[in-house]
Amino acid sequence: MMNRLNRRAFLAGLLALGLGNLAPLQVCAAAPDPLPSWNDGPVKKSILDFVAAVTKEGGPDYVAPAERIATFDNDGTLWVEQPVYTQFAFAIDRVKAMSNKHPEWKTQEPFKSVLNDDLKGLAASGEQGMVEIVAATHSGMSTADFNKEVKDWFAVAKHPRFKVLYTDLVYQPMLELLDYLRVNGFKTFIVSGGGVEFMRAFADKSYGIPPEQVIGSSGVTQFQMWDASPVLIKMPKVFFVDDGPGKPEAIDRIIGRRPIFSFGNSNGDKEMLEWTAAGDGLRFMGLVYHTDGSREYAYGPAVGLPDSKVGTFSQALMDEATGKGWTIVNMKSDWKTVFPPAKATP
Amino acid sequence: MMNRLNRRAFLAGLLALGLGNLAPLQVCAAAPDPLPSWNDGPVKKSILDFVAAVTKEGGPDYVAPAERIATFDNDGTLWVEQPVYTQFAFAIDRVKAMSNKHPEWKTQEPFKSVLNDDLKGLAASGEQGMVEIVAATHSGMSTADFNKEVKDWFAVAKHPRFKVLYTDLVYQPMLELLDYLRVNGFKTFIVSGGGVEFMRAFADKSYGIPPEQVIGSSGVTQFQMWDASPVLIKMPKVFFVDDGPGKPEAIDRIIGRRPIFSFGNSNGDKEMLEWTAAGDGLRFMGLVYHTDGSREYAYGPAVGLPDSKVGTFSQALMDEATGKGWTIVNMKSDWKTVFPPAKATP
Repeated sequence: MMNRLNRRAFLAGLLALGLGNLAPLQVCAAAPDPLPSWNDGPVKKSILDFVAAVTKEGGPDYVAPAERIATFDNDGTLWVEQPVYTQFAFAIDRVKAMSNKHPEWKTQEPFKSVLNDDLKGLAASGEQGMVEIVAATHSGMSTADFNKEVKDWFAVAKHPRFKVLYTDLVYQPMLELLDYLRVNGFKTFIVSGGGVEFMRAFADKSYGIPPEQVIGSSGVTQFQMWDASPVLIKMPKVFFVDDGPGKPEAIDRIIGRRPIFSFGNSNGDKEMLEWTAAGDGLRFMGLVYHTDGSREYAYGPAVGLPDSKVGTFSQALMDEATGKGWTIVNMKSDWKTVFPPAKATP
Repeated sequence: MMNRLNRRAFLAGLLALGLGNLAPLQVCAAAPDPLPSWNDGPVKKSILDFVAAVTKEGGPDYVAPAERIATFDNDGTLWVEQPVYTQFAFAIDRVKAMSNKHPEWKTQEPFKSVLNDDLKGLAASGEQGMVEIVAATHSGMSTADFNKEVKDWFAVAKHPRFKVLYTDLVYQPMLELLDYLRVNGFKTFIVSGGGVEFMRAFADKSYGIPPEQVIGSSGVTQFQMWDASPVLIKMPKVFFVDDGPGKPEAIDRIIGRRPIFSFGNSNGDKEMLEWTAAGDGLRFMGLVYHTDGSREYAYGPAVGLPDSKVGTFSQALMDEATGKGWTIVNMKSDWKTVFPPAKATP
């Protein structure tokens, strides 16, 4: 389990891609369209048809509201994950912010490389280096103190390419989709490999998804009494990695119902989509495919490139998705807008 | 962690108490009373006053609906936990039901003692025996198959004293309290040492608490593909024990908000109540004290007896609760009714 998180986070530091294509302009759709940022076509239609079918009382595909569970990956599905996972950028910034209390880091890897912005040196420190960075920045404090650090960081940290707050880089079409599902009686959950506390810092405000509907990876916490007051201390130990097979495992343990609707964008979402698909009745499985280097990013076989190390969407996943009739969102052609209005420009 | 669950479950098999006091009769309260099964007095008043204060818009103690998180222990707080935890009764019955496929159990402890209803022999097998019983009955099948077994068992298994279904032995005053809180915008959760899948089998129907609001102990599950279909297999390994300090740890990890209202009945709820109490603003901490051997059970120092091994409510907990002003429900004097109408009679 340890390896999965470490490799992902480690590799996240290494790669970024960007192509220069321009998206075609399109005329706006009719006023009552619940998904105005989605271009008309089979992808948008598959969403509208699914929701219409499961909400039609008396219809053959009707699903009671309580069972309308929708699960979404976060990185690359609801917001930008390039050039590195946002939580990795946070960890790097934390190392820098904490370095004045750790003079030994000036000469000690992997911290030395981080402080010198030396990605090659960081890569040389390998997975063990990443473990040390996560341990140093994500443990040894109370959950309350950590949450404050994350919120403070989100208030000022900017994306290196778009030069806006990370929370401005959520996908407008997915915000509309989340709203559309909730208006139709769905309960929307995040089920992501990201840290659960990290995501809760913005999920409610950015996505309308409350803390109790955010599922993510987590470290061990320990209940302790400090001056007769209880605190939860973050320990330098992985508790659960919510990625790959961990996603259906966490869904079953925490939600206790099988989703009827799931959206992801990478190999780490495969098992969640398979688990969703295997239930009775009508199901929706969707994948965001990053094909738009001009407005966002283009990476992986989608654009004729090797697998990206961040948000890998392999040819094998594409073959499975196509074979099983899952919905593939081509960002470049299916999304009229990528980001919320008056926010990021590339 | 392992020890806590094993000891609890093991000791659960050994003790039951019952005293013969009759509860005083009382005249019914006014019609719009949201808690008709609660006798008037300081305990009922503490609940009504708390809810009135946190829901009064513009008042000094107002809490926004999203933050109205209420957490309840299950065994001994929402339903009967004597003479043994219901899940232990299930495990015993499962051993008997599975014994035809395990001829070796006739001569192999702890199964031999279970099959012979030999509690002394079972006790002699110690914690290791309990581990084997839990492993044999709670693993080695898919979560779907396990859920079916539990539901089938609940449909027919009867409580040894009350001779009714276990789900008839929920506490009517607590059902009213759950409803009352929800009507006032609270989100109600179970946070219990019981197995999460076991509780989900009845929590929605019995308490109006949906699967995604049930938090409990759990075993490791593993995602596997069987004939190209995904299944989650229950492994013979403890994942998390949701008892004692595990309760605030799970609340923080899964709910992500601190409750403002918590109810328990034993030492295993101490940390959850401490965690609840330590937040800002008005808080409610409640404990059910089992003092009614006639209508239900009386056990522990409450009735001048040594600590019960099932649902231990120690003098130390009583001292802490009293010192901190937590609400102690004296079942005998505070509850007009114990069980839902036309169900159990002792």
